[in-house]
Amino acid sequence: MTHSSEIKALLFDVFGTVVDWRGGVARDLRPFLGRHAASIDAYEFADAWRRQYVPAMGEIRSGRRPFVRLDVLHRENLLKVLADYGIDVSSIPADELDALNHSWHRLDPWPDSIEGLLRLKRRFMIAPLSNGNIRLILDMAKRAALPWDAILGAEVVRAYKPSPQVYLETVEILGLEPSEVCMVAAHNSDLAAARQCGLKTAFVLRSTEHGPAQKTDLHAEQAWDFITTDLNDLATQIGCPT
Amino acid sequence: MTHSSEIKALLFDVFGTVVDWRGGVARDLRPFLGRHAASIDAYEFADAWRRQYVPAMGEIRSGRRPFVRLDVLHRENLLKVLADYGIDVSSIPADELDALNHSWHRLDPWPDSIEGLLRLKRRFMIAPLSNGNIRLILDMAKRAALPWDAILGAEVVRAYKPSPQVYLETVEILGLEPSEVCMVAAHNSDLAAARQCGLKTAFVLRSTEHGPAQKTDLHAEQAWDFITTDLNDLATQIGCPT
Repeated sequence: MTHSSEIKALLFDVFGTVVDWRGGVARDLRPFLGRHAASIDAYEFADAWRRQYVPAMGEIRSGRRPFVRLDVLHRENLLKVLADYGIDVSSIPADELDALNHSWHRLDPWPDSIEGLLRLKRRFMIAPLSNGNIRLILDMAKRAALPWDAILGAEVVRAYKPSPQVYLETVEILGLEPSEVCMVAAHNSDLAAARQCGLKTAFVLRSTEHGPAQKTDLHAEQAWDFITTDLNDLATQIGCPT
Repeated sequence: MTHSSEIKALLFDVFGTVVDWRGGVARDLRPFLGRHAASIDAYEFADAWRRQYVPAMGEIRSGRRPFVRLDVLHRENLLKVLADYGIDVSSIPADELDALNHSWHRLDPWPDSIEGLLRLKRRFMIAPLSNGNIRLILDMAKRAALPWDAILGAEVVRAYKPSPQVYLETVEILGLEPSEVCMVAAHNSDLAAARQCGLKTAFVLRSTEHGPAQKTDLHAEQAWDFITTDLNDLATQIGCPT
């Protein structure tokens, strides 16, 4: 049993763990695709856009490319996916592409997220540790009332998860030991990287992040310190009153 | 008349502008001095501690020293001031010095700050642009319920105000033009540096920041875009409903 009394701060993965990126991006894609490529399914396009995310960050994690914020990668990836679908990008105004790119700033929390975060915030420092850039996470939080104590993450340390420096430099910014910080994520790979750095770990089951046919992250692949069904369950397990 | 409709984000100096550092530090100094040097006035010590702030940052601004966060400078400056007062530091436990150093994390807002920030937050992004490090500003915000949308400032860009890069890189992080951002401060020098970078400027009169005999920053030294008596006045002038 993990002693939660040692934990001072909780760091949250955001896309998929706190908010539903697939539903939010598809919602904004629907009118866009209606204008430009009515035969393409919005969820399919959202999934294709998301698949570009890991390889794009890989260029930066490997050092082949200097750090740029996620808004920039999302915009480049959008152009790639549009081209892959045979859509003529030159016919679409840049403003319209920018607005669509900002769909990632307008994602809705899962139904338990706000209540769970508010309970956790009373006892712990809570902050995102997302690959999303500061403005993206700020816009999302302001729109949805996500009650972060600070916005930490990739842009603050200018590196992308799961590079160890992202976890370690963030712990250092908080003035804590790794064992005093718990990483909260719906992704086993994120938790594995955090555990390698000495952080505590909390798995949150998000079985429909990738849609109804999701095959990944349906169970905890290691004995994480907390294994939970949502953020309210985490709050209860970690000892926060309702 | 400045068109406030262009402004998207307000950045706030914190020490002196949003919170009363002198009163807060003196409050925590009193019991400490009572134990170690009962004849020293807490306000006088707080002022002496604060006087070390600008030269300490100067070492970093000039490039003679790599960036370290303000908690580190405050701790070094505390040792200097104790020595200047002839107090034997070796007799004081490190934990006690650390606790005193953290008095900067426990400062109270001026009476208008919370209400003013809440009004401004409904219409603008609001964030500190302080030389205080992230954990310091986080602790202060959590204790006093300062409703920041994000914590920006010196540690995020690894440089100290009034270096131009602090203002310019923060504007870039927000994805805005300098003219879309307004710096809010009780210090003419901070506003002058922000204006040089193209930001809008709002002066807040804090006539007792340095105590009843304050001689500096008692009036606006340039025609700032907004000249205000407190954060509620700023909210009114900039067009935020009560």
